[in-house]
This record gives sequence, structure tokens and C-alpha cells, in this order.
Amino acid sequence: MVSSGVWAGEIPVTRAHELGEINGGPATMKSELARIGYLGTVPASHESTPMAAHFELHIEQGPILEAEKRKVGVVDGVQAYRWYTVDVHGREAHTGTTPFSARADALQTAARMLVAAHDLAVANNALLSTGVLTLEPGSVNTVPGHVQFRLDIRAASDGIVDKMEADIKTTFDALALNTETGGLPLTYSMVTDSVSPAINFHSDCIEAVRASAEDVLGTVDLMREMVSGAGHDSVYTSRCCPTSMVFVPCRNGVSHNPEEYTSPEDCAIGAQVLLQSVLLFDRQRV
Amino acid sequence: MVSSGVWAGEIPVTRAHELGEINGGPATMKSELARIGYLGTVPASHESTPMAAHFELHIEQGPILEAEKRKVGVVDGVQAYRWYTVDVHGREAHTGTTPFSARADALQTAARMLVAAHDLAVANNALLSTGVLTLEPGSVNTVPGHVQFRLDIRAASDGIVDKMEADIKTTFDALALNTETGGLPLTYSMVTDSVSPAINFHSDCIEAVRASAEDVLGTVDLMREMVSGAGHDSVYTSRCCPTSMVFVPCRNGVSHNPEEYTSPEDCAIGAQVLLQSVLLFDRQRV
Repeated sequence: MVSSGVWAGEIPVTRAHELGEINGGPATMKSELARIGYLGTVPASHESTPMAAHFELHIEQGPILEAEKRKVGVVDGVQAYRWYTVDVHGREAHTGTTPFSARADALQTAARMLVAAHDLAVANNALLSTGVLTLEPGSVNTVPGHVQFRLDIRAASDGIVDKMEADIKTTFDALALNTETGGLPLTYSMVTDSVSPAINFHSDCIEAVRASAEDVLGTVDLMREMVSGAGHDSVYTSRCCPTSMVFVPCRNGVSHNPEEYTSPEDCAIGAQVLLQSVLLFDRQRV
Repeated sequence: MVSSGVWAGEIPVTRAHELGEINGGPATMKSELARIGYLGTVPASHESTPMAAHFELHIEQGPILEAEKRKVGVVDGVQAYRWYTVDVHGREAHTGTTPFSARADALQTAARMLVAAHDLAVANNALLSTGVLTLEPGSVNTVPGHVQFRLDIRAASDGIVDKMEADIKTTFDALALNTETGGLPLTYSMVTDSVSPAINFHSDCIEAVRASAEDVLGTVDLMREMVSGAGHDSVYTSRCCPTSMVFVPCRNGVSHNPEEYTSPEDCAIGAQVLLQSVLLFDRQRV
């Protein structure tokens, strides 16, 4: 989504170009664009290179279409999500000689935070997960003094995410006191890394996708309206031009994984709906 | 403890020499011994290079002596400890599109394991900690499919560690079913990496340390008998020759950390007790 973010003016092109490898390697976005011949001269900008509309075809990345045996999702929006970095600071200590009463175990407290945060998400009808967690110093016989983890919170509305953030802070404040384990208090910080508000796509585009899907499938029973759980380029384009998306089913809802799979037939249906959506929208333009 | 393990015949010298850097660098124990000039010709073996006894001076690495304002710990044994590697296998999934009911979140389950294992340790009067935890694939918007963590379990007797191990397996079996989060079941394995049974030091050596400490300190009020929470070279030497240890206090019980500190005066007391213990034991040898 970096490129569409630059195009939409949400991400400075220099910041995009400076993005480095996640594992600290020397390559940057800019050096890789140059390497593959994509560092062109056309400005990546919605002002100098505008679009009349944006339609995006994507696998659902979730299990709903497959479970309901439908072929097309008419995407009318994207759920809100926010990313956070949480740092928990306790105290390193020898595992064999330090009684629980003298410990400020950053990992034990972080584990309790992850469990409590999950339970809050269930209670608030939100999604929450931690995909990145690191600890220091990383020795089997040293109680971790520092744990850093990321939180990914998603919900249908910005209000639910607001409530999740508030509930989590209250809960983490309590857990940092460490009364549950009878140990020493810890400190933590929670920094917002990224905010993606809930998105409502353009009604004309949604209608173009709906009509095209019905035409291609021959029935409304094989399609449904839905909200995207993931972020997409369409999140950024929708801020600058009418936008909607077409979803096709994927096996077991798996994505971002070598097992990701959508049948050629379903890909073809998606491509046909995408094409007709563009043509239909274009015909209806004033 | 690798070197004393080799000397005691518990660790093959080739295995010790092949130990590599924890971060995967090229150096080995053997290459580093050669580099610093310590790859000598004297066999590291209790058979060809025996000792009549072994006395070891060490900081307590815990908070007890400092809290009780005592200067010397007469160490009569070492608590049992075992190390384990636990692998939790779930399924990678997109964080935005996968409802909780379709997740097998290896980190969420691992977090619940860490919390439950801690609570079991409290109930069994044992110590337990996790100092190493890694996850895959390590992306903020991917539910982790695999988490690996180490467990360090310690207790005054082997029987308590046995019970902890059994209780943990029962608890982990239940958590892997994942009914708590309403998600899909996971699998896990728990492999024993290292077993260090509870050690009782030699009564003659303990008595030599006790008598020397009383003589150096001038009073029994500044000393106490205690069990070592950590492993030491004396664990291995005690299998081949009479052994005991001398503990001195350390600030805040901290060790394996740049903050580790014992005053020069307390170091001197420890060294004096060590010297007199050796001389006393030697005089009493037949």
C-alpha cells in the first residue's frame, strides 16, 4: 500500500523510497525500484496523474465466500485498523536465584497483556492480534527485562477501535502493577504506529461492481456485499477518486502464505467482473 | 559450566569444542580457546587431572543475603532444574480477514501457556521462567503460525520438578485444544533440553566452609546455610570429588547484567573464607 499512499499524497515519496529491509539489509525501496527498472519519471501523484475511478480485484483473504459457496464479494468498505508498538520494561534477573516476589518479568507480564487484550477484543466484537514480539536479553536463564510487541486492532467502526484502545490501556495499566504474580511493578508504553479509519467506498462504484457481478454470475445468490478485513490500495485511492473492490474466494481463507490459492475459474470470474465494472462505470460518467 | 562438565566426563570434549555462537556467527568454543591461548595440552578430565576437593566462591545471584544483612552463605546444595523447548504450531492467517473462530494463533496459545505455567509454579513452590521466545513469520498483520519458547523450571527437589513437568503437560494439552479462544486446535511439543538433579554437597566441605566463615566473621549471625538457585561448576565437580561453595551478597540480587555488583569488602570476605576452607579441608585429609 506504500505506492498508493504516495499517489494519494498520504506518504511522502522520500519516506517511501527510504523504506529499508525488515531484517536490516542494505536495500531500500528506491534501490530495488531502480534495480527492477521501475524507478520511472511519471510522478506518483493523484494531482499530476489522476484517475477517474479505481476498481481493485483481490482474493478475499478470509473464509466467508468459500464457506457460503459464493463467487464474488461486492466490497462496500474497509474495516478500521490501528497498529501499535507496546514496550514492557521490567528487570533482568537470574531465573534460578530470584524469587517471584523480586521479579519484574517483562515476558510474563506481556503474556498476561496478550491474553487480556484478546479477551477484550472478543467482548468488543473486534479483532486483535500480535504478529511481532521480541524480548531481551534472550537467555534461557535470565528473566526478560524488556519485551516489545505489536498490536493490530481491527473493527467495523472507528468507535469500536477507540473503545478497544481505551480498554486496553486501562487493563495494561493494571497488569503493569504486577499484583497478579506478586512481583515488582513494571512500566510500559504504547505508541500508535498507524491509523487506518473505516472506509466507505463510492456508491456508484459499488453499484457498478454489483451490477457486473450479477450479470457475470447470472444470479445474486452467488454474490454478497461485504466489508474488507484487510487494508488495500483502494483505501488510499478512495480518498482521491470513486473506488470499490471485487473479492473472489480463496482456499481456507489463507493469504500471505505459500498455501494461498484461488482457482483459475474464480480468478477469471473476478477479472470479468472487474472489466465490466470499469466499462459500466465509464459509460455512466457524465 | 561447559568446562567443568567436560572435566567431570558429563560432556564430550568434542561437543564442547563445537559449541557455536548463539547468534550463528562463525566462532566456536575451540576457535575462541585457540584465539586466547587457552587450547592447552592438559586433558580436561577428572581421571587424568583429578582434584582432592573443590571449593567455589560466587556471588549469591539472589537477594537473600543482602535482605538479611548477612555476609556469607554456606552452600549445602543446588536446587534441581530442567530446561525445555516448547514448540507451538498453529496456522498463519491474515489478521484482518480471519475471524477468531478460524484462527489457530500460536502466540495467543503460547501466552496462555506462559501464564498457566507461572501459576502452576506458584502452586508447587517452584520457580519457572521463559527467557527465550521466537515466533514465525513475524509480520504485524499475520497471525503467528509457530512459536518456540524455552522453559526453565527449578525447585528444591527433583520430585517437585517431576510434578511441575506433569502438571504443565496436562495444562498445555488442554490449552492446545484452544477452547478458551473458540479457535481451531493447535499442536505442541515439549522436549527436555537439560536435566540438573538436586545436588547435596559433601558434608566435610560444607563443614569446612561453615567453620571458616564463623572464624572470619567472628559470629554465626552474619552467615547462613542456603541452597544455590543457580547451576555452578560445583554441580559437576561434586560428582567426582568433595565439593561445597561460598556465597557473598550482591546488590539487589542482580546478576548476568551490567548492574551486577558486590562490594570489594564482601569479595575480600569471600576470598578469605574460600582460602581458609581449602586449608582447613586439606589439614583434615587423611
